[in-house]
Amino acid sequence: MELGKLLYDGKAKQIYETENENEIIMHYKDDATAGNGVKHDQFAGKGILNHTISGIIFDMLEEAGIKTHLIKKLSDTDDLVKKVEIFPLEVIVRNITTGSFCRRTGCQEGLVLEEPIFEISYKNDEYGDPLINEDHAVAMSLCTREEYAKIKASTLKINELLKEFFLSLNLKLVDFKIEFGKTADGEILLADEISPDSCRLWDVNTNKKYDKDVFRQDIGDLIETYKAVLARMENK
Amino acid sequence: MELGKLLYDGKAKQIYETENENEIIMHYKDDATAGNGVKHDQFAGKGILNHTISGIIFDMLEEAGIKTHLIKKLSDTDDLVKKVEIFPLEVIVRNITTGSFCRRTGCQEGLVLEEPIFEISYKNDEYGDPLINEDHAVAMSLCTREEYAKIKASTLKINELLKEFFLSLNLKLVDFKIEFGKTADGEILLADEISPDSCRLWDVNTNKKYDKDVFRQDIGDLIETYKAVLARMENK
Repeated sequence: MELGKLLYDGKAKQIYETENENEIIMHYKDDATAGNGVKHDQFAGKGILNHTISGIIFDMLEEAGIKTHLIKKLSDTDDLVKKVEIFPLEVIVRNITTGSFCRRTGCQEGLVLEEPIFEISYKNDEYGDPLINEDHAVAMSLCTREEYAKIKASTLKINELLKEFFLSLNLKLVDFKIEFGKTADGEILLADEISPDSCRLWDVNTNKKYDKDVFRQDIGDLIETYKAVLARMENK
Repeated sequence: MELGKLLYDGKAKQIYETENENEIIMHYKDDATAGNGVKHDQFAGKGILNHTISGIIFDMLEEAGIKTHLIKKLSDTDDLVKKVEIFPLEVIVRNITTGSFCRRTGCQEGLVLEEPIFEISYKNDEYGDPLINEDHAVAMSLCTREEYAKIKASTLKINELLKEFFLSLNLKLVDFKIEFGKTADGEILLADEISPDSCRLWDVNTNKKYDKDVFRQDIGDLIETYKAVLARMENK
Protein backbone atom coordinates (compact mmCIF):
# COMPACT_ATOMS: atom_id res chain seq x y z
CA MET A 1 0.00 0.00 0.00
CA GLU A 2 1.36 3.43 -0.93
CA LEU A 3 1.71 6.18 1.63
CA GLY A 4 -0.59 9.12 1.00
CA LYS A 5 -0.16 12.66 2.26
CA LEU A 6 1.67 13.08 5.59
CA LEU A 7 -1.02 14.15 8.05
CA TYR A 8 1.01 14.28 11.26
CA ASP A 9 4.69 14.08 12.13
CA GLY A 10 5.02 13.29 15.83
CA LYS A 11 7.91 12.58 18.18
CA ALA A 12 8.03 8.86 17.45
CA LYS A 13 5.44 8.26 14.72
CA GLN A 14 4.06 9.61 11.46
CA ILE A 15 0.51 9.38 10.19
CA TYR A 16 -0.28 9.15 6.46
CA GLU A 17 -3.51 9.42 4.51
CA THR A 18 -4.83 6.46 2.52
CA GLU A 19 -7.39 6.30 -0.28
CA ASN A 20 -9.98 5.27 2.33
CA GLU A 21 -11.01 8.28 4.43
CA ASN A 22 -11.66 6.05 7.46
CA GLU A 23 -8.21 4.46 7.44
CA ILE A 24 -4.71 5.85 7.93
CA ILE A 25 -1.19 4.48 7.99
CA MET A 26 0.82 4.73 11.22
CA HIS A 27 4.59 4.66 10.70
CA TYR A 28 7.00 4.01 13.59
CA LYS A 29 10.08 6.26 13.48
CA ASP A 30 13.52 5.53 14.95
CA ASP A 31 13.37 8.65 17.14
CA ALA A 32 13.34 8.63 20.92
CA THR A 33 12.48 11.71 22.97
CA ALA A 34 12.25 12.40 26.69
CA GLY A 35 11.42 15.31 28.96
CA ASN A 36 8.75 16.69 26.61
CA GLY A 37 11.15 16.57 23.64
CA VAL A 38 14.11 18.24 25.41
CA LYS A 39 16.17 15.07 25.02
CA HIS A 40 16.07 13.65 21.50
CA ASP A 41 18.03 10.98 19.68
CA GLN A 42 17.72 8.43 16.89
CA PHE A 43 18.25 4.70 17.26
CA ALA A 44 18.43 2.62 14.09
CA GLY A 45 15.94 -0.21 14.41
CA LYS A 46 13.82 1.33 17.22
CA GLY A 47 10.82 1.78 14.92
CA ILE A 48 10.84 -1.89 13.90
CA LEU A 49 11.24 -3.03 17.52
CA ASN A 50 8.39 -0.92 18.91
CA HIS A 51 6.17 -1.78 15.98
CA THR A 52 6.74 -5.50 16.54
CA ILE A 53 6.29 -5.31 20.32
CA SER A 54 3.18 -3.13 20.09
CA GLY A 55 1.70 -5.41 17.41
CA ILE A 56 2.01 -8.48 19.64
CA ILE A 57 0.43 -6.58 22.54
CA PHE A 58 -2.44 -5.13 20.49
CA ASP A 59 -3.20 -8.63 19.10
CA MET A 60 -3.26 -10.01 22.64
CA LEU A 61 -5.60 -7.23 23.80
CA GLU A 62 -7.92 -7.64 20.78
CA GLU A 63 -8.18 -11.36 21.56
CA ALA A 64 -9.14 -10.46 25.14
CA GLY A 65 -11.94 -8.21 23.90
CA ILE A 66 -10.32 -4.75 23.88
CA LYS A 67 -11.27 -2.79 20.78
CA THR A 68 -8.25 -1.19 19.11
CA HIS A 69 -7.59 0.93 16.02
CA LEU A 70 -5.40 -1.79 14.44
CA ILE A 71 -6.59 -3.17 11.08
CA LYS A 72 -3.46 -4.89 9.82
CA LYS A 73 0.30 -4.83 9.69
CA LEU A 74 1.63 -3.43 6.40
CA SER A 75 5.39 -3.70 6.89
CA ASP A 76 8.05 -3.90 9.60
CA THR A 77 7.31 -0.32 10.63
CA ASP A 78 3.83 0.46 9.33
CA ASP A 79 0.27 -0.41 10.34
CA LEU A 80 -3.03 0.24 8.64
CA VAL A 81 -5.28 1.60 11.40
CA LYS A 82 -8.77 3.04 11.72
CA LYS A 83 -8.82 6.81 11.56
CA VAL A 84 -9.82 8.18 14.95
CA GLU A 85 -9.91 11.56 16.58
CA ILE A 86 -7.44 11.13 19.43
CA PHE A 87 -8.68 12.32 22.84
CA PRO A 88 -6.11 14.90 24.01
CA LEU A 89 -5.50 12.81 27.11
CA GLU A 90 -2.52 10.81 28.30
CA VAL A 91 -4.20 7.95 30.12
CA ILE A 92 -1.92 6.58 32.81
CA VAL A 93 -2.01 3.67 35.23
CA ARG A 94 0.50 3.17 38.03
CA ASN A 95 0.98 -0.14 39.84
CA ILE A 96 4.24 0.87 41.54
CA THR A 97 5.06 4.48 42.45
CA THR A 98 7.84 6.22 40.53
CA GLY A 99 8.37 8.95 37.94
CA SER A 100 6.38 12.18 37.73
CA PHE A 101 3.98 11.18 40.50
CA CYS A 102 6.83 10.92 43.04
CA ARG A 103 8.60 14.02 41.70
CA ARG A 104 5.42 16.10 41.97
CA THR A 105 4.26 14.94 45.40
CA GLY A 106 7.27 13.60 47.24
CA CYS A 107 5.55 10.23 47.52
CA GLN A 108 7.96 7.41 48.32
CA GLU A 109 9.42 5.65 45.25
CA GLY A 110 8.71 1.98 44.63
CA LEU A 111 5.53 1.57 46.70
CA VAL A 112 3.68 -1.47 45.38
CA LEU A 113 0.08 -0.25 45.32
CA GLU A 114 -2.82 -2.38 46.53
CA GLU A 115 -5.06 -0.72 43.94
CA PRO A 116 -3.73 0.88 40.74
CA ILE A 117 -3.64 4.65 40.40
CA PHE A 118 -5.60 5.87 37.36
CA GLU A 119 -4.76 9.36 36.17
CA ILE A 120 -5.09 11.55 33.11
CA SER A 121 -2.94 14.34 31.75
CA TYR A 122 -3.97 16.97 29.25
CA LYS A 123 -1.88 16.27 26.12
CA ASN A 124 -0.43 19.73 25.56
CA ASP A 125 3.30 20.22 24.99
CA GLU A 126 3.16 23.95 25.75
CA TYR A 127 1.85 23.26 29.26
CA GLY A 128 3.95 20.12 29.79
CA ASP A 129 1.04 17.64 29.69
CA PRO A 130 -0.36 18.76 33.06
CA LEU A 131 -2.16 16.33 35.34
CA ILE A 132 -5.91 16.95 35.36
CA ASN A 133 -8.94 15.14 36.73
CA GLU A 134 -12.26 14.06 35.25
CA ASP A 135 -14.00 17.36 36.06
CA HIS A 136 -11.20 19.35 34.37
CA ALA A 137 -11.43 17.17 31.25
CA VAL A 138 -15.18 17.68 31.05
CA ALA A 139 -14.90 21.43 31.72
CA MET A 140 -12.36 21.76 28.88
CA SER A 141 -14.51 19.57 26.58
CA LEU A 142 -11.67 17.04 26.19
CA CYS A 143 -14.19 14.22 26.68
CA THR A 144 -17.68 13.69 28.06
CA ARG A 145 -18.36 11.98 31.39
CA GLU A 146 -19.61 8.93 29.48
CA GLU A 147 -16.43 8.80 27.39
CA TYR A 148 -14.31 9.23 30.53
CA ALA A 149 -16.09 6.30 32.18
CA LYS A 150 -15.55 4.08 29.13
CA ILE A 151 -11.88 5.07 28.84
CA LYS A 152 -11.31 4.42 32.55
CA ALA A 153 -13.04 1.03 32.54
CA SER A 154 -11.18 -0.08 29.42
CA THR A 155 -7.86 1.13 30.83
CA LEU A 156 -8.25 -0.75 34.09
CA LYS A 157 -9.06 -3.92 32.13
CA ILE A 158 -6.01 -3.33 29.90
CA ASN A 159 -3.91 -2.94 33.07
CA GLU A 160 -4.99 -6.36 34.31
CA LEU A 161 -4.26 -7.95 30.92
CA LEU A 162 -0.88 -6.24 30.57
CA LYS A 163 0.19 -7.02 34.14
CA GLU A 164 -0.48 -10.71 33.56
CA PHE A 165 1.15 -10.64 30.12
CA PHE A 166 4.36 -8.99 31.34
CA LEU A 167 4.49 -11.11 34.48
CA SER A 168 4.61 -14.16 32.21
CA LEU A 169 7.79 -12.55 30.76
CA ASN A 170 9.18 -12.08 34.28
CA LEU A 171 8.57 -8.32 34.02
CA LYS A 172 6.67 -6.12 36.46
CA LEU A 173 4.38 -3.58 34.81
CA VAL A 174 5.23 -0.51 36.90
CA ASP A 175 3.15 2.01 34.96
CA PHE A 176 2.09 2.83 31.42
CA LYS A 177 0.56 5.52 29.22
CA ILE A 178 -2.04 4.83 26.53
CA GLU A 179 -4.19 6.92 24.25
CA PHE A 180 -7.71 6.47 22.99
CA GLY A 181 -9.47 7.77 19.92
CA LYS A 182 -13.01 8.03 18.65
CA THR A 183 -14.16 6.96 15.19
CA ALA A 184 -16.48 9.08 13.09
CA ASP A 185 -19.40 7.06 14.44
CA GLY A 186 -18.37 7.53 18.08
CA GLU A 187 -16.72 4.20 18.84
CA ILE A 188 -13.91 4.50 21.38
CA LEU A 189 -10.78 2.54 20.41
CA LEU A 190 -7.38 2.01 21.96
CA ALA A 191 -4.96 3.83 19.64
CA ASP A 192 -1.28 4.86 19.50
CA GLU A 193 1.12 2.14 20.71
CA ILE A 194 2.06 0.06 23.75
CA SER A 195 5.81 -0.48 23.91
CA PRO A 196 8.83 0.08 26.20
CA ASP A 197 8.48 3.75 25.15
CA SER A 198 5.17 3.97 26.98
CA CYS A 199 5.47 1.34 29.75
CA ARG A 200 7.84 1.04 32.69
CA LEU A 201 8.94 -2.60 32.95
CA TRP A 202 11.17 -3.91 35.73
CA ASP A 203 12.64 -7.39 35.91
CA VAL A 204 10.79 -9.35 38.58
CA ASN A 205 13.98 -10.60 40.23
CA THR A 206 16.49 -7.78 39.76
CA ASN A 207 14.29 -4.68 39.21
CA LYS A 208 16.51 -3.96 36.17
CA LYS A 209 14.76 -1.51 33.86
CA TYR A 210 13.50 -2.72 30.48
CA ASP A 211 12.01 0.52 29.14
CA LYS A 212 12.70 4.06 27.94
CA ASP A 213 14.10 4.99 31.36
CA VAL A 214 17.42 3.52 30.12
CA PHE A 215 17.42 6.42 27.63
CA ARG A 216 15.90 9.04 29.96
CA GLN A 217 18.45 8.25 32.67
CA ASP A 218 21.37 7.18 30.43
CA ILE A 219 21.67 3.85 32.19
CA GLY A 220 21.69 1.41 29.30
CA ASP A 221 21.51 0.75 25.59
CA LEU A 222 18.00 1.44 24.30
CA ILE A 223 18.12 -0.95 21.34
CA GLU A 224 19.62 -3.83 23.35
CA THR A 225 17.02 -3.24 26.06
CA TYR A 226 14.05 -3.24 23.67
CA LYS A 227 15.50 -6.30 21.87
CA ALA A 228 15.61 -8.08 25.22
CA VAL A 229 11.91 -7.31 25.81
CA LEU A 230 11.00 -8.63 22.36
CA ALA A 231 13.13 -11.74 22.92
CA ARG A 232 11.19 -12.51 26.11
CA MET A 233 7.94 -12.10 24.14
CA GLU A 234 9.08 -14.36 21.31
CA ASN A 235 10.45 -17.03 23.65
CA LYS A 236 7.24 -17.14 25.67
CA MET B 1 -10.94 31.15 78.47
CA GLU B 2 -7.16 31.17 78.76
CA LEU B 3 -4.97 30.14 75.87
CA GLY B 4 -2.99 26.98 76.55
CA LYS B 5 0.17 25.86 74.82
CA LEU B 6 0.64 27.00 71.21
CA LEU B 7 0.21 23.82 69.15
CA TYR B 8 0.51 25.26 65.65
CA ASP B 9 1.52 28.61 64.17
CA GLY B 10 0.28 28.79 60.59
CA LYS B 11 0.29 31.43 57.88
CA ALA B 12 -2.97 33.04 59.01
CA LYS B 13 -3.97 31.22 62.20
CA GLN B 14 -2.67 29.83 65.45
CA ILE B 15 -3.94 26.82 67.35
CA TYR B 16 -3.79 26.61 71.16
CA GLU B 17 -4.38 23.79 73.59
CA THR B 18 -7.22 23.93 76.11
CA GLU B 19 -7.82 21.99 79.30
CA ASN B 20 -10.13 19.69 77.33
CA GLU B 21 -8.13 17.36 75.12
CA ASN B 22 -10.95 17.27 72.52
CA GLU B 23 -11.13 21.04 72.13
CA ILE B 24 -8.68 23.65 70.89
CA ILE B 25 -8.66 27.41 70.36
CA MET B 26 -8.26 28.76 66.84
CA HIS B 27 -6.86 32.31 66.69
CA TYR B 28 -7.09 34.42 63.53
CA LYS B 29 -3.89 36.38 62.83
CA ASP B 30 -3.57 39.63 60.88
CA ASP B 31 -1.15 38.04 58.39
CA ALA B 32 -1.83 37.57 54.70
CA THR B 33 0.32 35.37 52.49
CA ALA B 34 0.21 34.45 48.81
CA GLY B 35 2.19 32.30 46.40
CA ASN B 36 2.88 29.61 48.99
CA GLY B 37 4.17 32.23 51.49
CA VAL B 38 6.47 34.06 49.04
CA LYS B 39 4.39 37.22 49.46
CA HIS B 40 3.66 38.09 53.09
CA ASP B 41 2.23 41.12 54.84
CA GLN B 42 0.27 42.14 57.92
CA PHE B 43 -3.01 44.02 57.91
CA ALA B 44 -4.30 45.37 61.23
CA GLY B 45 -7.86 44.12 61.68
CA LYS B 46 -7.70 41.30 59.12
CA GLY B 47 -7.97 38.63 61.84
CA ILE B 48 -11.15 40.17 63.26
CA LEU B 49 -12.69 40.55 59.78
CA ASN B 50 -12.02 36.98 58.66
CA HIS B 51 -13.12 35.61 62.02
CA THR B 52 -16.41 37.50 61.80
CA ILE B 53 -17.06 36.58 58.16
CA SER B 54 -16.15 32.93 58.68
CA GLY B 55 -18.29 32.76 61.82
CA ILE B 56 -21.39 33.96 59.95
CA ILE B 57 -20.74 31.44 57.16
CA PHE B 58 -20.10 28.51 59.50
CA ASP B 59 -23.33 29.32 61.40
CA MET B 60 -25.23 29.38 58.10
CA LEU B 61 -23.74 26.04 57.05
CA GLU B 62 -24.43 24.42 60.44
CA GLU B 63 -28.07 25.51 60.16
CA ALA B 64 -28.20 23.88 56.72
CA GLY B 65 -26.94 20.59 58.15
CA ILE B 66 -23.19 20.75 57.49
CA LYS B 67 -21.19 19.48 60.45
CA THR B 68 -18.34 21.83 61.37
CA HIS B 69 -15.65 21.98 64.04
CA LEU B 70 -17.05 25.21 65.52
CA ILE B 71 -18.16 25.04 69.17
CA LYS B 72 -18.40 28.73 70.07
CA LYS B 73 -16.94 32.14 69.54
CA LEU B 74 -14.59 33.22 72.34
CA SER B 75 -13.59 36.70 71.26
CA ASP B 76 -13.26 38.89 68.18
CA THR B 77 -10.43 36.72 66.88
CA ASP B 78 -10.77 33.38 68.67
CA ASP B 79 -13.03 30.35 68.39
CA LEU B 80 -13.32 27.28 70.54
CA VAL B 81 -13.39 24.37 68.08
CA LYS B 82 -13.40 20.59 68.21
CA LYS B 83 -9.94 19.11 67.93
CA VAL B 84 -9.63 17.26 64.64
CA GLU B 85 -6.86 15.70 62.66
CA ILE B 86 -6.84 17.80 59.49
CA PHE B 87 -6.79 15.80 56.25
CA PRO B 88 -3.69 17.03 54.36
CA LEU B 89 -5.92 18.04 51.46
CA GLU B 90 -6.87 21.39 50.00
CA VAL B 91 -10.41 20.74 48.86
CA ILE B 92 -11.30 23.05 46.00
CA VAL B 93 -14.42 23.81 43.98
CA ARG B 94 -14.45 25.96 40.86
CA ASN B 95 -17.62 27.46 39.39
CA ILE B 96 -15.81 29.86 37.04
CA THR B 97 -12.36 29.11 35.61
CA THR B 98 -9.43 31.21 36.81
CA GLY B 99 -6.27 30.95 38.93
CA SER B 100 -4.01 27.92 39.09
CA PHE B 101 -6.28 25.79 36.90
CA CYS B 102 -5.92 28.19 33.97
CA ARG B 103 -2.21 28.78 34.62
CA ARG B 104 -1.50 25.04 34.65
CA THR B 105 -3.58 24.02 31.64
CA GLY B 106 -4.03 27.10 29.46
CA CYS B 107 -7.81 26.79 29.88
CA GLN B 108 -9.65 29.99 29.01
CA GLU B 109 -10.21 32.36 31.97
CA GLY B 110 -13.71 33.18 33.13
CA LEU B 111 -15.58 30.18 31.71
CA VAL B 112 -18.81 29.80 33.66
CA LEU B 113 -19.00 26.04 34.22
CA GLU B 114 -22.20 24.07 33.77
CA GLU B 115 -21.05 21.68 36.48
CA PRO B 116 -18.57 22.65 39.20
CA ILE B 117 -15.01 21.33 39.09
CA PHE B 118 -14.08 19.41 42.24
CA GLU B 119 -10.37 18.98 42.87
CA ILE B 120 -7.96 18.19 45.67
CA SER B 121 -4.39 19.24 46.28
CA TYR B 122 -1.93 17.60 48.61
CA LYS B 123 -1.27 20.12 51.39
CA ASN B 124 2.51 20.18 51.29
CA ASP B 125 4.42 23.48 51.15
CA GLU B 126 7.65 21.81 50.00
CA TYR B 127 5.94 20.50 46.88
CA GLY B 128 3.73 23.58 46.36
CA ASP B 129 0.43 21.86 47.25
CA PRO B 130 0.36 19.75 44.06
CA LEU B 131 -2.91 18.77 42.44
CA ILE B 132 -3.71 15.10 42.99
CA ASN B 133 -6.70 12.86 42.37
CA GLU B 134 -8.64 10.41 44.53
CA ASP B 135 -6.37 7.46 43.65
CA HIS B 136 -3.26 9.45 44.58
CA ALA B 137 -4.79 10.44 47.92
CA VAL B 138 -5.65 6.83 48.72
CA ALA B 139 -2.22 5.58 47.57
CA MET B 140 -0.51 8.11 49.87
CA SER B 141 -2.92 7.24 52.74
CA LEU B 142 -4.13 10.85 52.94
CA CYS B 143 -7.70 9.57 53.23
CA THR B 144 -9.68 6.42 52.54
CA ARG B 145 -12.07 6.07 49.59
CA GLU B 146 -14.99 6.32 52.02
CA GLU B 147 -13.61 9.52 53.55
CA TYR B 148 -12.98 10.95 50.06
CA ALA B 149 -16.59 10.25 49.08
CA LYS B 150 -17.90 11.94 52.23
CA ILE B 151 -15.62 14.96 51.77
CA LYS B 152 -16.65 15.31 48.12
CA ALA B 153 -20.38 15.03 48.81
CA SER B 154 -20.18 17.52 51.68
CA THR B 155 -18.10 19.93 49.59
CA LEU B 156 -20.54 19.94 46.68
CA LYS B 157 -23.39 20.62 49.11
CA ILE B 158 -21.35 23.44 50.69
CA ASN B 159 -20.79 24.85 47.20
CA GLU B 160 -24.53 25.03 46.56
CA LEU B 161 -25.13 26.71 49.93
CA LEU B 162 -22.28 29.18 49.50
CA LYS B 163 -23.24 30.06 45.91
CA GLU B 164 -26.76 30.92 47.03
CA PHE B 165 -25.50 32.81 50.10
CA PHE B 166 -23.05 34.96 48.16
CA LEU B 167 -25.48 35.52 45.30
CA SER B 168 -27.84 37.08 47.87
CA LEU B 169 -24.96 39.53 48.55
CA ASN B 170 -24.63 40.21 44.82
CA LEU B 171 -21.36 38.25 44.73
CA LYS B 172 -20.46 35.36 42.41
CA LEU B 173 -18.67 32.48 44.12
CA VAL B 174 -15.91 31.84 41.58
CA ASP B 175 -14.02 29.18 43.55
CA PHE B 176 -13.03 28.31 47.10
CA LYS B 177 -10.76 26.14 49.20
CA ILE B 178 -11.87 24.35 52.33
CA GLU B 179 -10.36 21.83 54.72
CA PHE B 180 -11.81 18.92 56.61
CA GLY B 181 -10.74 17.15 59.75
CA LYS B 182 -11.56 13.96 61.58
CA THR B 183 -12.37 13.71 65.29
CA ALA B 184 -10.89 11.02 67.49
CA ASP B 185 -14.06 8.98 66.91
CA GLY B 186 -13.87 9.30 63.12
CA GLU B 187 -16.45 12.01 62.48
CA ILE B 188 -15.60 14.18 59.47
CA LEU B 189 -16.07 17.92 60.11
CA LEU B 190 -15.60 21.06 58.07
CA ALA B 191 -12.65 22.84 59.70
CA ASP B 192 -10.36 25.83 59.10
CA GLU B 193 -12.18 28.95 57.82
CA ILE B 194 -14.27 30.25 54.92
CA SER B 195 -13.42 33.87 54.17
CA PRO B 196 -12.21 36.15 51.36
CA ASP B 197 -8.80 34.54 52.01
CA SER B 198 -10.11 31.22 50.76
CA CYS B 199 -12.90 32.18 48.32
CA ARG B 200 -12.81 34.12 45.07
CA LEU B 201 -15.80 36.49 45.04
CA TRP B 202 -16.68 38.72 42.10
CA ASP B 203 -19.36 41.39 42.07
CA VAL B 204 -22.30 40.15 40.01
CA ASN B 205 -22.56 43.34 37.98
CA THR B 206 -19.00 44.61 37.71
CA ASN B 207 -16.86 41.47 38.25
CA LYS B 208 -14.86 43.56 40.75
CA LYS B 209 -12.84 41.29 43.03
CA TYR B 210 -13.83 41.00 46.68
CA ASP B 211 -11.18 38.56 47.87
CA LYS B 212 -7.47 37.95 48.50
CA ASP B 213 -6.71 38.47 44.81
CA VAL B 214 -6.62 42.22 45.61
CA PHE B 215 -3.54 41.42 47.73
CA ARG B 216 -2.09 38.73 45.39
CA GLN B 217 -2.37 41.05 42.40
CA ASP B 218 -1.89 44.41 44.21
CA ILE B 219 -5.15 45.75 42.81
CA GLY B 220 -6.88 47.03 45.92
CA ASP B 221 -6.90 47.56 49.67
CA LEU B 222 -7.31 44.24 51.45
CA ILE B 223 -8.93 45.60 54.62
CA GLU B 224 -11.39 47.85 52.73
CA THR B 225 -12.27 44.92 50.45
CA TYR B 226 -12.92 42.50 53.32
CA LYS B 227 -14.89 45.21 55.19
CA ALA B 228 -17.07 45.60 52.08
CA VAL B 229 -17.80 41.85 52.06
CA LEU B 230 -18.73 41.93 55.76
CA ALA B 231 -20.90 45.02 55.19
CA ARG B 232 -22.87 43.16 52.50
CA MET B 233 -23.33 40.26 54.93
CA GLU B 234 -24.49 42.50 57.77
CA ASN B 235 -26.86 44.51 55.55
CA LYS B 236 -28.46 41.37 54.16
